[in-house]
Amino acid sequence: MRFDLMTLFPEMCDRVLGESILGRAQEKGAITVHTHQIRDYTLNKQKQVDDYPYGGGMGMVMYAQPIADCFRAVCEQAGSRPHLIYMSPQGAVLTQRRALELSRLPHLCVLCGHYEGVDERVLDALVDEQISIGDYVLTGGELPALVLVDCIARMIPGVLSDDVCFTEESHFSGLLEYPQYTRPAVWEGREVPEVLLSGHHANIQKWRREQSLLRTLRHRPDMLEKAELSEKEREFLRRQAEQAEPAGPEPSAGRELP
Amino acid sequence: MRFDLMTLFPEMCDRVLGESILGRAQEKGAITVHTHQIRDYTLNKQKQVDDYPYGGGMGMVMYAQPIADCFRAVCEQAGSRPHLIYMSPQGAVLTQRRALELSRLPHLCVLCGHYEGVDERVLDALVDEQISIGDYVLTGGELPALVLVDCIARMIPGVLSDDVCFTEESHFSGLLEYPQYTRPAVWEGREVPEVLLSGHHANIQKWRREQSLLRTLRHRPDMLEKAELSEKEREFLRRQAEQAEPAGPEPSAGRELP
Repeated sequence: MRFDLMTLFPEMCDRVLGESILGRAQEKGAITVHTHQIRDYTLNKQKQVDDYPYGGGMGMVMYAQPIADCFRAVCEQAGSRPHLIYMSPQGAVLTQRRALELSRLPHLCVLCGHYEGVDERVLDALVDEQISIGDYVLTGGELPALVLVDCIARMIPGVLSDDVCFTEESHFSGLLEYPQYTRPAVWEGREVPEVLLSGHHANIQKWRREQSLLRTLRHRPDMLEKAELSEKEREFLRRQAEQAEPAGPEPSAGRELP
Repeated sequence: MRFDLMTLFPEMCDRVLGESILGRAQEKGAITVHTHQIRDYTLNKQKQVDDYPYGGGMGMVMYAQPIADCFRAVCEQAGSRPHLIYMSPQGAVLTQRRALELSRLPHLCVLCGHYEGVDERVLDALVDEQISIGDYVLTGGELPALVLVDCIARMIPGVLSDDVCFTEESHFSGLLEYPQYTRPAVWEGREVPEVLLSGHHANIQKWRREQSLLRTLRHRPDMLEKAELSEKEREFLRRQAEQAEPAGPEPSAGRELP
């Protein structure tokens, strides 16, 4: 699969994508990534990429022209028009399901905005889809674009060492993942749960599934509505929910802040 | 504010955080960031940081010991214990509100996991809070940690050029942002909305607020429930919702994929 990133910080993006699993995926040819400096497509002498917003207000807005010309260059280089995504807090929030759908495309282009965003007209003219990585605001679209590429790329065959891996994970089955432990069996007085040392495969599977169910019930009950569960599992959750103490803080919500 | 990141990829994190707005914030001393190589705290000769999970299964799990020792070194260096966050799909999903709360702390430490995660015992022993940046899975905790630091840092006084900036943005007011335009007034036949060229401040404010409301209604109606709206604005939205065509694709959901 091919990714093109249009950004004001191509070297930084290259650095992140060249590291670890995605770096190896590029070496193996499972994915190719091209980054493009939007500034190279400016037509003004100062290579200025942004200007004050019409109507006033804080911040700067990126010009339509260099972005449009950069995208046209990407299309020409590739010989076809990729699906163009703009990373924006205005977009639909990214989900694992959407990332899986996008991983089936041959070619994606991602536009990273900066400052107060980009001129709306270039979005109207060219962008196929706006994606947000969550309900929070960042200084630019680079980190969101890198998150999107990482999330999609790792589901492409040949990127992870074993293709089966990602189907067992959080958000793939619709449940949170069970806890993991590695050596030593006792660390600073804390023991690994006995069942994991038992070698009894069926019991381990059962324990892990129950842990996934319990964690999801405790931390993300909203996910249970959409999860595929057996009648036995639903019954298990009903019993747990009844037994649960009504008070007690949400562990993932963090301790009280000073 | 001080940030410490514990990671297997400190140079990559430094590179991202040294760029653009966060780089300048560090130069100005508005934030300080320290990255720590977890591998430096291993006690085995091979500097191995991970091992097979107890109970079998794919992937590798990071040892508790190097992480715990790294965190203790951070506490010692800083002279006090920071709030420790672990980036994890199991965590509570990051929101702008939570980021704002965290921005009021003097010191945060963020643990980036990799591979199949980290030994649960070190989380039980040390971690104050688990945060997820969204319902999707990535190859490691570095991008999520960078997203968290970026989101928090930009709300710290002195980081953005004007402190007022971020309070006008998407997800701060509980609405999506209005569209932005910059020069030229006509680009490839597309005009800037006339009101923005009028110089009439009150009309511009009204138009922008309506655009925010309309966008949120169209793309993220779930956000309207929590937004602070006047009775007049609620009435405006009711009228718009009635007028809206019942069919039509969700623009942000993207065009049909091949």
